[in-house]
Amino acid sequence: MNSFYSELTQFLAIPGPVEIHPKVYEAMNRHLYGHRTDQFRKIYVDCEKKFQPTIQTNQPIYFLAGSGSLGLHAAITNMVAKEDKVINLVNGKFGERVEKISQRFSNYSLVLREEYGRAIKPEKVQELLEKNPDTKLVTITHNETSTAVLNPLPEISKIVHDHGALLMADCITSAGGDLVKMDDWKIDFFVSGSQKCYGLPPGLSFVSFSDEAAKRMEEVPRNQDFYSDLLMYREKMSKAPDTPFTPAVSLMYGLQASLDLIHEEGMENRINRHRLMGTVYRSALEELGVELLAEEGYRSNTVTAAIFPNGVDPSKFMTYMKQYGILVTGGQGSLKGKIWRVGHMNLVGPREILTITSVVELALKKAGANIKLGSGVAKILEILNETE
Amino acid sequence: MNSFYSELTQFLAIPGPVEIHPKVYEAMNRHLYGHRTDQFRKIYVDCEKKFQPTIQTNQPIYFLAGSGSLGLHAAITNMVAKEDKVINLVNGKFGERVEKISQRFSNYSLVLREEYGRAIKPEKVQELLEKNPDTKLVTITHNETSTAVLNPLPEISKIVHDHGALLMADCITSAGGDLVKMDDWKIDFFVSGSQKCYGLPPGLSFVSFSDEAAKRMEEVPRNQDFYSDLLMYREKMSKAPDTPFTPAVSLMYGLQASLDLIHEEGMENRINRHRLMGTVYRSALEELGVELLAEEGYRSNTVTAAIFPNGVDPSKFMTYMKQYGILVTGGQGSLKGKIWRVGHMNLVGPREILTITSVVELALKKAGANIKLGSGVAKILEILNETE
Repeated sequence: MNSFYSELTQFLAIPGPVEIHPKVYEAMNRHLYGHRTDQFRKIYVDCEKKFQPTIQTNQPIYFLAGSGSLGLHAAITNMVAKEDKVINLVNGKFGERVEKISQRFSNYSLVLREEYGRAIKPEKVQELLEKNPDTKLVTITHNETSTAVLNPLPEISKIVHDHGALLMADCITSAGGDLVKMDDWKIDFFVSGSQKCYGLPPGLSFVSFSDEAAKRMEEVPRNQDFYSDLLMYREKMSKAPDTPFTPAVSLMYGLQASLDLIHEEGMENRINRHRLMGTVYRSALEELGVELLAEEGYRSNTVTAAIFPNGVDPSKFMTYMKQYGILVTGGQGSLKGKIWRVGHMNLVGPREILTITSVVELALKKAGANIKLGSGVAKILEILNETE
Repeated sequence: MNSFYSELTQFLAIPGPVEIHPKVYEAMNRHLYGHRTDQFRKIYVDCEKKFQPTIQTNQPIYFLAGSGSLGLHAAITNMVAKEDKVINLVNGKFGERVEKISQRFSNYSLVLREEYGRAIKPEKVQELLEKNPDTKLVTITHNETSTAVLNPLPEISKIVHDHGALLMADCITSAGGDLVKMDDWKIDFFVSGSQKCYGLPPGLSFVSFSDEAAKRMEEVPRNQDFYSDLLMYREKMSKAPDTPFTPAVSLMYGLQASLDLIHEEGMENRINRHRLMGTVYRSALEELGVELLAEEGYRSNTVTAAIFPNGVDPSKFMTYMKQYGILVTGGQGSLKGKIWRVGHMNLVGPREILTITSVVELALKKAGANIKLGSGVAKILEILNETE
């Protein structure tokens, strides 16, 4: 079948980078300001003011020129000294990334590992902390993108703080789409990135930290980082305000436009939309008889991982999806060939989820699935029809 | 329901302007060339060369700065003198537009009128021409956008020429998407526009004419037009080549990019895609029990007009469509509140038709229709599943 234009304009239904609003593209194409000018400083400060309510914090936000992984790197290099004990809560590829960073910078890095698809359980964290009362930092992946599991961050945070440790949370695929309350939940070190729920191209990492984290940073040797030395950031920003290194100016223009859209929609509406889109897409898959990877009760609202039904050729499925113009992604590591993942972030609404689902049905059928064509879409339409 | 982003980025499923490919937007944003430069002339000539095969002609193409109606205006002012007899074949709003123009410039303008939704029948044209052997020009709307009827142009053209008259064809919503053979079908005066199947914003009218039409033009007084005096165009273009007036430079950049995409897809593939999209969308409506306005055998492949089922509140339907981010349009004149129309032109492929159909189902249901949700989409998926 001829899907010429659909193939040329792949809809990004991967869990980031996501589809970007035309107003954001427009903003990014504006003429560059010099980065040491009041014009640019005004934009930077405006972004900070508009970013804070998206994660319910009063702390300063640092917009680093780099990908989300730079923020994860910064968390460890700024907060962990060689002799510090760190516990990494790991139930997927992104938890494993933080684990790797921790192992580079700490000689006492421990891991609490959960099977792919299962959530980190607070009681296990409690148990491990009781055995390791000298733990300085616990790291968690809030929304584990590789398995589509949403870990119970607030419950775990309480336990972590009861044991006198600090919490670093990778909120790269939750913040800006799902609920994140940095101050209430006592996230000491927050990390996110531009290309997920914040609706920008890749290239910015967002970090913020608590007063306790700042105190901790002052005890950690400054010679294990330079580019993401956050005390240097804090000092520079307290003056001009100026970033220590050249900021990604166009992406900051885009961020301002995207944050304006976020507030125009309203953060609460936005979260509810992401939750509804997660719900309807999962319902469609279940209606089609497709199993989900993530355990019930801990399913992400921004990304869904589905297990290929018997008889489906995964590479054929991927080829058909691309042909019909929807880019989804497969599993990583041991999940390769077993699951496919769909991101429903940023601007995905009823229209987009219906598009994605109908094309998923067609590609599943063509790749060998024994499904009733149209039944997933019908399920979504029924739910939406009942929704005011 | 919160469809914030869908409402902000309405998908244009109206019968033009249509959704535009990012490569076309990019091209239109290039730095302007002066229009009397070889750089621009090269683009103009390239556009002509690439446009000709889309309507299978060897005649020069004129790209007028104006909307499609300027081309219709030019057809009459260039080809019709006051004392000339013209027959307008009229079965919809766009036929009526040509009728109005003819009445301004001819004292002997006749109309063959058909009911909205019915096609012009060759035998009736034959009959009227037999009664009016002195007819100089017959005008036809190839694809009548207001009723979604595709008139049998080749059959009618044969009859027109058998009676010694010339044929003007409004191909505004057929050319570039459905089949148009200007030379073979003996279209003496061809008119189209940029914002339909050619995938550009509005602002350009495309005209071309046969040698017979050119001879006729030389007999028509030159004092009834200026801006679209095509003999002036022909003369200027035969020299530099330069347009007599300032051309719409950015739109010409866009046209070049769009024609490149058209040929990358292949004109035959493109026509087949438009025909398949028309077929599957009509099949979905029929599956939902929705009646079509156009009579069978004469249904357009680029636009579909559907009759609101009993119980549906048309204004509610329109509001829901917009809320879910798909812009469709209603009926014009006496068809207002009775039908809605969907354009499936330019980049509409399987992905887009599934999106449109699923949202149409939801809006119909919410507006009071008694339909089985999902059944239209299921029908399309079944047809696409059987299509290689």
